[in-house]
Parts: sequence; structure tokens; C-alpha cells
Amino acid sequence: MIQIAILGYGTVGSGVYEITQKNAKSIKRKSGKEIVVKRILDLREFDDHPHKELFTKDFDDILNDSDISIVVETIGGLEPAYRFTKSALLAGKSVVTSNKELVATHGTELLRIAREQNVNYLFEASVGGGIPIIRPLNGCLAANEITEIFGILNGTTNYILTKMIKDGESFADALRQAQEKGYAERNPEADVEGHDACRKICILASLAFGKAVDADKIHTEGITNITLEDVREAADLGYVIKLIGYTKKTEDGRAICRVSPMLVPEGNPLSGVEDVFNAIMVRGDSIGDVMFYGRGAGKLPTASAVVADVIDIVKGADNKNFIWDEAPEGYMACYKEAVVSLFVRAKGVTKDDVEKVFGSDTVFGRADELCFITPPDKEKELDKKLEALGGEIISRIRVMQEED
Amino acid sequence: MIQIAILGYGTVGSGVYEITQKNAKSIKRKSGKEIVVKRILDLREFDDHPHKELFTKDFDDILNDSDISIVVETIGGLEPAYRFTKSALLAGKSVVTSNKELVATHGTELLRIAREQNVNYLFEASVGGGIPIIRPLNGCLAANEITEIFGILNGTTNYILTKMIKDGESFADALRQAQEKGYAERNPEADVEGHDACRKICILASLAFGKAVDADKIHTEGITNITLEDVREAADLGYVIKLIGYTKKTEDGRAICRVSPMLVPEGNPLSGVEDVFNAIMVRGDSIGDVMFYGRGAGKLPTASAVVADVIDIVKGADNKNFIWDEAPEGYMACYKEAVVSLFVRAKGVTKDDVEKVFGSDTVFGRADELCFITPPDKEKELDKKLEALGGEIISRIRVMQEED
Repeated sequence: MIQIAILGYGTVGSGVYEITQKNAKSIKRKSGKEIVVKRILDLREFDDHPHKELFTKDFDDILNDSDISIVVETIGGLEPAYRFTKSALLAGKSVVTSNKELVATHGTELLRIAREQNVNYLFEASVGGGIPIIRPLNGCLAANEITEIFGILNGTTNYILTKMIKDGESFADALRQAQEKGYAERNPEADVEGHDACRKICILASLAFGKAVDADKIHTEGITNITLEDVREAADLGYVIKLIGYTKKTEDGRAICRVSPMLVPEGNPLSGVEDVFNAIMVRGDSIGDVMFYGRGAGKLPTASAVVADVIDIVKGADNKNFIWDEAPEGYMACYKEAVVSLFVRAKGVTKDDVEKVFGSDTVFGRADELCFITPPDKEKELDKKLEALGGEIISRIRVMQEED
Repeated sequence: MIQIAILGYGTVGSGVYEITQKNAKSIKRKSGKEIVVKRILDLREFDDHPHKELFTKDFDDILNDSDISIVVETIGGLEPAYRFTKSALLAGKSVVTSNKELVATHGTELLRIAREQNVNYLFEASVGGGIPIIRPLNGCLAANEITEIFGILNGTTNYILTKMIKDGESFADALRQAQEKGYAERNPEADVEGHDACRKICILASLAFGKAVDADKIHTEGITNITLEDVREAADLGYVIKLIGYTKKTEDGRAICRVSPMLVPEGNPLSGVEDVFNAIMVRGDSIGDVMFYGRGAGKLPTASAVVADVIDIVKGADNKNFIWDEAPEGYMACYKEAVVSLFVRAKGVTKDDVEKVFGSDTVFGRADELCFITPPDKEKELDKKLEALGGEIISRIRVMQEED
């Protein structure tokens, strides 16, 4: 029998408890041992809970309990999650988490401590909710050199964009509906400004390339400036707008990371990912492109990923190589070095002006106002050309290439 | 250092060798040890190979070499692959394979022997080429009760159907092009008659539900009877035709398995899977739907999955619970018990006749001939109604439900 503790009995934490109860039999069959929740840490009262004796408000009750070998951290945020996680690892307990902010911020240190203590620090649930992505990256795709990862990493913004694209709702209306459905927080900043997607691409890039990416240094744009005009003119040109987390290894071994809205060509598998679904495309040198698709959030999907990590530890998985190192100075290349096309809506210039600057491969939209897609180039070069063009730039959105 | 042997130096086997050479450094970083190919078994001559000294025609050179702890079986087919695999496992060597026919036919016995010998028998590459599916089913989704799996499991038939749908090519022309591109064998029966997809759904169903499914008892229809008229009238109704491997756990704990063409509604993620790509949808009680997408075949994708299994063994993964048991008598439920809708093209009956038999929820196509989709019901009930309808049935294809 393996005894575990759950820190934080919110949406995900209570889901973890629920799954360990209802699927106890099959979990035992798969892990070879019974998995029992011994303590639950939460500051609130749970007097009506059928097992209220499990609850404690004192973390030391868990830390000092040598029966508890695995701690599930589903508190979220940096503190006290960071302090509790570090103490648990130092006490020789493995920790499983869904806390993307903590992994993105202190993952390098926590993974190092786990390795030194010969325990595991696992975080499958931190990216893509229940979608298997962390383990496949580290295991099933281990024979590949990963060159690029890009995807729809945030369900809230994808729901809002889907409403704008399919139903012609404005950003504000779509956001309100997302809030009514519980997909968006009352303060939606972390989602709509791209911070949530930023933490996830930070984790994926660190894992895929083996060096710590600093989330604070990732260029991050949200979707608050996307208008219905952008959506409509993109559609005219055969694209849908999605919030895309993107990372690529450069030829000199550095990482480019970026979160921003992008025009995705219809026909690209990511273009059909709608509502709160997430999808992550991984490009490897042997495998080519593989995509992982599913619900990127929600109580049971996320909790099932946490429980899968617990099962993995019980089965004795050795994930000590499951780690990234500190990155050297200058490891992160400027996102302006990446090759992109730009979708531009502009005023005060003519088609001829645009063709003179960007050349004859520019693709023009049919709208009354001037709207075009530039040929691909390094973003810093396109910036210079846009400045040379002059006029008033109304929108400027990156375009995913056909081969992306 | 871990020393391995490769049995069969064909497409996949030579790919395994290539990947162990070119990605040696990152494989060592991920597995913690150097992985070296010590012997290669093949009956052909490889005098021009830069390491021709590795080759042998005598399996005993591998079986009796105690330095070799992992054997990669990429011979394909039942014999001599079965005999070699069994001998290697009994000699205490782990075996990794891409051989779906062997796993589907003798997997239960080989997994049992592996468990008894405390070694691994892994087969990630047997389904979906390089797409991670076996390990995620067994690991990342372990906290779920899997209820259904369905997907596009064969790249050759998906290429042919894509050509028919997109370019209006006939089945015969599309097949010829697939053969010219090397996607289809000169004798294409295993692909176009659905046998390949049958072996794959057999493996997935056995693993997901934990009991051996008998591939010979899976109802299997190929795509040879699909006509351009079927494709066009399906498109009119908002569907594309795909060859779908399907399995579902019934409420009384039995398995329904089936391989057949199906009408997939546009908007379903499977509908956008084109050319030689594969995609597998897994439905779990906690996670909901997750989909895995990528190249289902090809030298390097498949070989990279084989090498990932080797790395997993080197890392000390314990996959002894990675197994299914013998199934009791009567475990496989008749496929006619599954609820489906049917797409029907018929002559000699009227719309009124159809509505009298199938009710007012029947959906009619706009074509000149009579074409309709029945409301969902158990297939055996629909069969009775079709018989009652009379007339001449030109086509009869299952329809994937919106909630599928």
C-alpha cells in the first residue's frame, strides 16, 4: 500500500481524491499496489466530507508522517506551494503537481533537489490538462531530436476565439460568455494576456531542449487586441486566428520562444481545434509531426493526469533524467530572429506602395481597406520594411507557414 | 553500455540502426547509458555496409551472446519472428518489436513469458508507427477507465480515400498512385481489406481493456467497395468516408471490435486527418476524448518508436503490469450489438417507404437516387428494418455519431 497526501482541496485536488476512490480497483491493477489518500491539507473546513478526519490545516502533519511517500500539490500559485514542495522533496517524498506557475518559475531548482534526494518531481498535469504530453516528450519521443513545438495551450482564449470566428461575437461578448460558463476567471488577465500559455511553452521548451527557459523573457502577446475585422479578413484569406505558444531550436543551439495570436491556415490540424480544446504539435527529426489533442483543463481531466504520475512513481519509474539544466547566458535568442509572415491591415498606403516594399509575392485580401500577407522573412527584417512602408498599421498578426 | 541486436535489416531495422548512430549523444543523455548495436541478423549480404562485421545469418550468435540484453525484432510476419522472440525472452533478454501481426497473434503468450522471465516485451511501434499510443494508454491514461477507442489506423487506405475525396479519383486510380508512391504494396490486400487495421485495433483493445482480443473474430471490412458516388453523396450530407478501427467496452464488461469504412462528420477531429496520417481517439471516464495524430508508418517514425522502447528498458522501466490476460469464453460481443446509424443508397423504394420503416428522423440526401441516413439503433435492429424495407441496397456504410 502506498499512502499519499493532497495539498489543496480545490478543483484539481478534489478531482484527484475522487479518481483514487472511484477507480481504486483498476489503479491497483495497473500500479501493482493500493494507493490510499492519508491526509488532505486545506485551510477551509470540510465538516460535511464523508472522510473529514483526513483533513488538516498543518503541513507538518504531512511532512513529518513517514507513511506518506508521495505528496500531490494542487494548491497552485507560488506560495506556499513552493515552500511545501521544497520541504517535501528534501524530506525524501516524491511530489506530483499540476502547478504550471511553480514549475515554470522554480522547476529547475525543484528538479535538481528531487534528483539529489533520489525522488521524483512530476508535472504531467501542468501542460495540456489531461492530455499526455510531458511523458511522451520525455519518453516515447526520446529517440528524436525535438526541433519545434507549437500549439494551442490555453482553453479559455481558444473558446473566446472560436466564438468570434464561428458566431461573429465581439471579444468582449465572447469573454463574458466564457466567464458565465466558468471557462474564464472574473479577472481573466492570466488567460487573455497569454501568461498561462507562456508558462506552458516555457515548460515544454525547457523539457524538449534540456535547458531552462526563463518565462519572464518569453515574448508574450494576448488576444485582447484581436477584432472581428481581423477574424473576418483572415477567414477571407483562408486562415483562422489562434493563440499559439511557439518554440524552436535555432541552428546554433539556442531557443526561440513566443506566445502570440497567429493566423493558422485552414487544413493545418491546429485550425480545427475548437472551444476549450488544446492541441500541441511536436516536430522531431525522426518522427516528423505528431499532435496531441484533448481537453486542456477541467477537474477530472487534469486530476487524471496527476493520478497517472502517482501511478508512475508507484511503478518505480526512474525519472531522474527527466530534467533540464541551467541555461548559459544568452541561451534565449530574440524572437525577432524567427522567420514569419505578417498579416497586416493598413491605412494611408496603396497596394503599389506595399508591393514596392514587400515584393510581388505579397498576398492581398479582398476587403475595401488594404490588407495583405507578407512573404516570409526574419521578423526584424519585416519590421524594418513596415517602417519603410509608412501609413497607419491597424493590425499586425504573425502567420503560421504552410510547412509549420 | 547496453548492447542490443537487430533482427531483420529491412526498412524499420535499418532505421533503428540509423537512429542509434545519429542520435547517439542525446540517447545517452536520456537513457543514462550508451546504447550500442552489437549484432544484426539478416539472411542477405551487406558487404558494402560500413560495419559489415555486425551482420550474421545465425540467430544463435545473438541468442547465446550474454552481452546482448535487448533484442529488436523488425522481421515482421509470424515466422521466424515468433520463434526468435520466444527464444530471446526465455533466454532472459528483453524484446522490442514493430511486428503488429506477431503481437496481435501471440502477444498474450509472449507477454506472459516476458513477465515470468522478469524482462520486457514492448511494442510501441506496432500501432501508429511513431505516434506515441501504447505507452500513453498504459501510463499517462492509467488513471482512466478507457471506454472506447476509434481511429484511422492505416495510412495506405487513408491516402486512397483522401485521393477519392479531394481529387475525385476512382478507387483503382488512387490505389495505383499509392503503389507508385510506395505507400501500398504490389499485393495491397492486407491494407485495403482492413487486415492491418484489424491487427492494430486488436492490440489497442487488448491493452485498454486488459483482456486478449482474438483478431480472427474481429468483424473486418475494407474499402474496396467504396465508390465515388458514396464519397460524393456523403460529402453532400457533410461527411467524409474513413476506414475506422473501433472498439468499445460494453456495460457488461465485454468488448465490441470492428474495422469498417465509416462516414465521419465534418468537424470531428478525425475528418481532417488526410493522406498517410493516422489518428487515434481514446475516450476515458476522466479525461474525456484525447487524440494522437502523426505519421502512422515510414522508416524513421517507426524506428524512432522502437528506439524509444529500448531507451525505456535501459532506464529500468518496469512494464510487467503492461499485459493483458486470456479472455473468458464469450468475451467478444457481436458487433451487431453496437449502436450505429447507417448511410444507405437504395433503388426500388420511395422516400415514403423509408420513413415508414425508419421514422421521421431519417435524413435524406439530395441526390437523384434515394440516399438516406437512418436514426441510430443497434445494428441488428437496423438490419431487420432494411430487410423489411426491401428494394435494392447499393451501399450501406456505418455513420459515426456526433458524440462519437
